[in-house]
Amino acid sequence: MGPNPSQISKAVILLSGGLDSATAAAIAKGMGFELYALSFSYGQRHSKELEAAQAVGEFFGVKDHQVVDFDLRKWGGSALTADMDVPLDRDESEMASSIPTTYVPARNTIFLSFALGYAEVVGADTIVIGVNQLDYSGYPDCREEYLLAFERMANLATKGAVEGGRRTRIYAPLLHMTKAEIITKGTALGVDYGLTWSCYQGLDQPCGRCDSCLLRAEGFRRAGLTDPLEPVDSEQ
Amino acid sequence: MGPNPSQISKAVILLSGGLDSATAAAIAKGMGFELYALSFSYGQRHSKELEAAQAVGEFFGVKDHQVVDFDLRKWGGSALTADMDVPLDRDESEMASSIPTTYVPARNTIFLSFALGYAEVVGADTIVIGVNQLDYSGYPDCREEYLLAFERMANLATKGAVEGGRRTRIYAPLLHMTKAEIITKGTALGVDYGLTWSCYQGLDQPCGRCDSCLLRAEGFRRAGLTDPLEPVDSEQ
Repeated sequence: MGPNPSQISKAVILLSGGLDSATAAAIAKGMGFELYALSFSYGQRHSKELEAAQAVGEFFGVKDHQVVDFDLRKWGGSALTADMDVPLDRDESEMASSIPTTYVPARNTIFLSFALGYAEVVGADTIVIGVNQLDYSGYPDCREEYLLAFERMANLATKGAVEGGRRTRIYAPLLHMTKAEIITKGTALGVDYGLTWSCYQGLDQPCGRCDSCLLRAEGFRRAGLTDPLEPVDSEQ
Repeated sequence: MGPNPSQISKAVILLSGGLDSATAAAIAKGMGFELYALSFSYGQRHSKELEAAQAVGEFFGVKDHQVVDFDLRKWGGSALTADMDVPLDRDESEMASSIPTTYVPARNTIFLSFALGYAEVVGADTIVIGVNQLDYSGYPDCREEYLLAFERMANLATKGAVEGGRRTRIYAPLLHMTKAEIITKGTALGVDYGLTWSCYQGLDQPCGRCDSCLLRAEGFRRAGLTDPLEPVDSEQ
């Protein structure tokens, strides 16, 4: 006997193609959510992450996968969307000291806003986002305080909330996890991290030097695991 | 002697091409703001409003005008973005009784999110939006409560807010005005309403029967003014 369709909870999952959102998808899937994936082609220099997002979506058997297309290079303002260098080789104290140039103005607000619309159309009551505020680049729109404020606003914004009393929850299962804990958790849930892509630079291989590569490498090291994307060092 | 550039306040103005946003632009311009216009091509059936938005932007001599392009027809969910009929000939009590099918899920949240990013890049501390919650179609994301929640969220979302203590204000000068008051105010400020476009249907002339046309006509009537877009009735 299959599940009662009316009891299946639907969730929109923001899939960037990175390690965090893949882990968040695994957690949501494990909780029994039917997943509706949402990704963005916004002019990011690392558009390779979109192929990864597609592969991750297929891996988790998402019910639908939408890619919304718009171009934030119009106004730039970030090393990811304008002709600016991605900062390299920063250590943990540098990462903790200020918000880097890879910050994209209002990015998560834009992403969550589209997710809110998509969720209302498919009837999902949960939006899953893989942000975490421990091992991260200090982006303001990855913090719990911000997510709670977004959720509050969302529940005043939609027809479902106002007429139907249907609340939308912003669920960020990784919020208080370290990168090592995220990787350990995802590995236990069977996530194939070989499908994911973290590097900010638009190269064929991960650069190993941007914040995103460095946080990933340190996470695998502390978890005592090997990154399937790590190049095999032939000299060892 | 010109104004001190450091003292010029910049505002991002959401320009739909409609009567309300044109009036909001006139008010903001009158307050001395340097205007940065933002419009959206989102797959709306009444894309004619975009030409109007362009004309309105030029009329007010905006410093810059960005049009962000994305396609909400992907998931539809609205008479403006899917193959659904626009409701016609509704009276005021019908408009007041429920949110109509022209509601676009999360539309103002998406628009304001892009405005937030654009504002951060150009250094604007104000986002002007021409919503009003008196003579309107009952959209939840036109209410003061919603706008205040968006503003609160916005001030936790950006680098400028978190690192620089720069607050962003959501300014909705028409919020508590009737349509007639809006038209009276705009006329006094010299707005050329012949440049604007309100009709929801994608026709060459305003249909005169959708909520947007009906609210506009009633507003002009109560203001005792003639809509420059109104077809001349040859029988009179």
